[in-house]
Amino acid sequence: MYETALPAPLHDALLALLGPAGFLTQATDTSPYCTDWRALYHGRCAAVLRPATTEECAKAVALCHAHGVPMVPQGGNTSMVGGATPDGSGRAVVVSTTRMRQVIAIEHADLTMTVEAGVTLKAAQDAAAAEGLLFPLSISSEGSADIGGILSTNAGGNNTVRYGNARELALGLQAVLPDGTVLDLMRRLRKDNTGYALRQLLIGAEGTLGIITRAIIQLQPAPRSRETALCAVADAKAALDLFAAFRREDPSAIQAFEFMSGVSMGLVNTLIEGASLPLAQPAPAYALVELASPRAGNSLRELMEDVLGHALETGLVSDAVLAESEAQRLDLWKLREEHAEAQKRAGASVKNDVSVPLPAIPTLIAQATAACEALIPGIRVAPFGHIGDGNIHFNLVQPEGADPEAFLAQDHAIMDTVAAIVRKLDGSFSAEHGVGQLKTYLMPSWRGGAELTTMHRIKNAIDPANLMNPGKIFPPDRGTSPRKLPPTHP
Amino acid sequence: MYETALPAPLHDALLALLGPAGFLTQATDTSPYCTDWRALYHGRCAAVLRPATTEECAKAVALCHAHGVPMVPQGGNTSMVGGATPDGSGRAVVVSTTRMRQVIAIEHADLTMTVEAGVTLKAAQDAAAAEGLLFPLSISSEGSADIGGILSTNAGGNNTVRYGNARELALGLQAVLPDGTVLDLMRRLRKDNTGYALRQLLIGAEGTLGIITRAIIQLQPAPRSRETALCAVADAKAALDLFAAFRREDPSAIQAFEFMSGVSMGLVNTLIEGASLPLAQPAPAYALVELASPRAGNSLRELMEDVLGHALETGLVSDAVLAESEAQRLDLWKLREEHAEAQKRAGASVKNDVSVPLPAIPTLIAQATAACEALIPGIRVAPFGHIGDGNIHFNLVQPEGADPEAFLAQDHAIMDTVAAIVRKLDGSFSAEHGVGQLKTYLMPSWRGGAELTTMHRIKNAIDPANLMNPGKIFPPDRGTSPRKLPPTHP
Repeated sequence: MYETALPAPLHDALLALLGPAGFLTQATDTSPYCTDWRALYHGRCAAVLRPATTEECAKAVALCHAHGVPMVPQGGNTSMVGGATPDGSGRAVVVSTTRMRQVIAIEHADLTMTVEAGVTLKAAQDAAAAEGLLFPLSISSEGSADIGGILSTNAGGNNTVRYGNARELALGLQAVLPDGTVLDLMRRLRKDNTGYALRQLLIGAEGTLGIITRAIIQLQPAPRSRETALCAVADAKAALDLFAAFRREDPSAIQAFEFMSGVSMGLVNTLIEGASLPLAQPAPAYALVELASPRAGNSLRELMEDVLGHALETGLVSDAVLAESEAQRLDLWKLREEHAEAQKRAGASVKNDVSVPLPAIPTLIAQATAACEALIPGIRVAPFGHIGDGNIHFNLVQPEGADPEAFLAQDHAIMDTVAAIVRKLDGSFSAEHGVGQLKTYLMPSWRGGAELTTMHRIKNAIDPANLMNPGKIFPPDRGTSPRKLPPTHP
Repeated sequence: MYETALPAPLHDALLALLGPAGFLTQATDTSPYCTDWRALYHGRCAAVLRPATTEECAKAVALCHAHGVPMVPQGGNTSMVGGATPDGSGRAVVVSTTRMRQVIAIEHADLTMTVEAGVTLKAAQDAAAAEGLLFPLSISSEGSADIGGILSTNAGGNNTVRYGNARELALGLQAVLPDGTVLDLMRRLRKDNTGYALRQLLIGAEGTLGIITRAIIQLQPAPRSRETALCAVADAKAALDLFAAFRREDPSAIQAFEFMSGVSMGLVNTLIEGASLPLAQPAPAYALVELASPRAGNSLRELMEDVLGHALETGLVSDAVLAESEAQRLDLWKLREEHAEAQKRAGASVKNDVSVPLPAIPTLIAQATAACEALIPGIRVAPFGHIGDGNIHFNLVQPEGADPEAFLAQDHAIMDTVAAIVRKLDGSFSAEHGVGQLKTYLMPSWRGGAELTTMHRIKNAIDPANLMNPGKIFPPDRGTSPRKLPPTHP
């Protein structure tokens, strides 16, 4: 007796193909794969498939395809938007990349690394570092998130300002398409204009067009010099002007440029042990600047001092501290990295991962702050994030002492308030996190018309039976199988 | 009486929509649009449509779509592969972007420029320069090539090594789809994970999925310091090692890194007036290195001298000259830029725009040189190009005094010889130039199977009637309308 809804012939074929380690059907084994990291979604699945190779993955997908069984690709299961969690029907299988963990090759001649999809971001970073190289993508879930996942979701992070999103860091790709065909785009070429950009299409498709199984990622020489400064500024406009001042001198030296509101920094300073603001007094806002170069020497220090010196003179920056050691550098970064944890400790919070055109950031912060404060008196508006990319985590923390449940009951009102302002500023409702299932309902109003229609056409062309990660990206009313093609002219 | 094959109602509707300046039907007016820049293809068209706005373009496309008339998008008509030339049937219309020439906005706050598709690359560069900014894409046809064209073909050029291909330089895009729908992706966002990468799909699609009408392009601060050096090296391996030495120190300082074979440089030196090699004696090969930074000061000179000094000591570079003035810099660049002209003056030549993984370049050059010399004794093997991107223009010049016609009669044998070696090295038959109609025949063998099948599925999904730039990218036997969908498993 099997705890699975799979037809017996499919069950037996998958078990024979994948073996017991690659084919989980007991609820105790499968349940960790059915709940997302944020515990927003609790799904069910008929089985978890853990292929060890691309070939196994392709055969397993072909079997599921032949039986019309939906498949949910899953990497490190760190989605912020329920992008890798099956629905509650129990019909789908989860296809996990966790057994495909091989770093296949590192090439110094072209600074590339060939990896299987299940290699975690941290493992890829470490493998690069062991060779004196850098894989510059860095996100907080990097210990679990894997290469397949970060490419499927086009992850961003702190160093996007210099190196781009995950998209810009992939040279080659291999994927299993919904019918089990292997699409092999593993070319280590920086220039290759021979037809449609299929690699680009798979990147960011959140597993709805296929399962990424391998990649060739672009490395960089490791930094040999680094300068890090925490700057007190009056507001987001001042932080943005400071960013522009560094960019005017040398955009490619800016390894990271992060914004932190005074409210959010205040929470870190009071709620996180070991965190301490190394400035004379708290400020309305902060910028954390990191410059880095593979070139040794003191030219970065000169650059930092030139720009900061001028900014202090003109009053753009009211106070600043430079890290004089690696320990001090890590202390400064701790002040940035603990924002999520500090907000969690401050009670319930609502997260908005939004982006707007760079010049619109001050307006976003001013208007969204005012609107949220009007909506819920006492709400703590605690934005922070990658201001150099126009990407702000516009987070709202419950009023002190308020009831968390009552606060969270207003989460949609809060999100809609922020979203309306982002929308007016031609921004995006999801800068880094993707759509998953959490944000599908926003797609028609934000990306409707020709854009969503074209996405539908592509989905239908590549996955006509809608078997690959159903219910993700596309809004539910159109997302069920078989999907009806909407007219081009809405 | 009209000189056109268009049905009268369509003719009248287009004339009413576009006016006489936007609707050309006389052969004397249309013929320049029907022959490609290299004069390889001499097509015919029913009319040339020159819409002045996106709205006019959309309406014109909708009219043609309703009448089943094929459309050939054309920018500056500088394709190297016949990508913008109609076939000989005279059924198609050319849709030219030449009247959409407005630079709409330049934003200093995020270094972006909003342009219409018909703005030439040179005009965009000049508009940026007038504001103290840089649009870094640079190709030899930049005086005619327009923004729509360089995005549709994902152009590369000398500065790709630092800033990426055209793909990496576009933040936003607007396009008219084959049925006349406007797809508006004009978002100035560096992070936006809300569905499929439609912008990426349109870039490099060579006009087969729609007509790009507007774009938001990423600018850079203009360089305030620059160092340029011509280096004599033993071979491509030495040039590549020199590139790696610079990259180890600071990849983001390398504005360009070009390779030139001794044979090709010899042609420039003897056939181009005013060209003169500023080195004591000719070398087997050369590298032209340009470093640039928006930061003033002498740190680039230090970097150049550090790396070149060490390379001269170890014998990696046998001789080198640094530009000490802008005039000297332009003289060094002239030696690089005149290679195509010098080869033209040397007689008939065969061009191969190929790329291979960086470490395979020495093998490519050694093996392809030997194979071509074995094929045609006396052939002059004259490779040059963007070695930092793995992209070599592997050009072959006829033997001195030989009959050009007889040499050109062997062009396919020569191309096939080079291609076989590129193929073995996992390279690409078209690094920068695209497929157009010249190279469609190579698609099944190089990109066949799942890759070409998936491209076909996307083409069919977005342009089911195959009206948009038919006969380009896809091989002829599948490229005619209506296209039959090949099975996924070949």
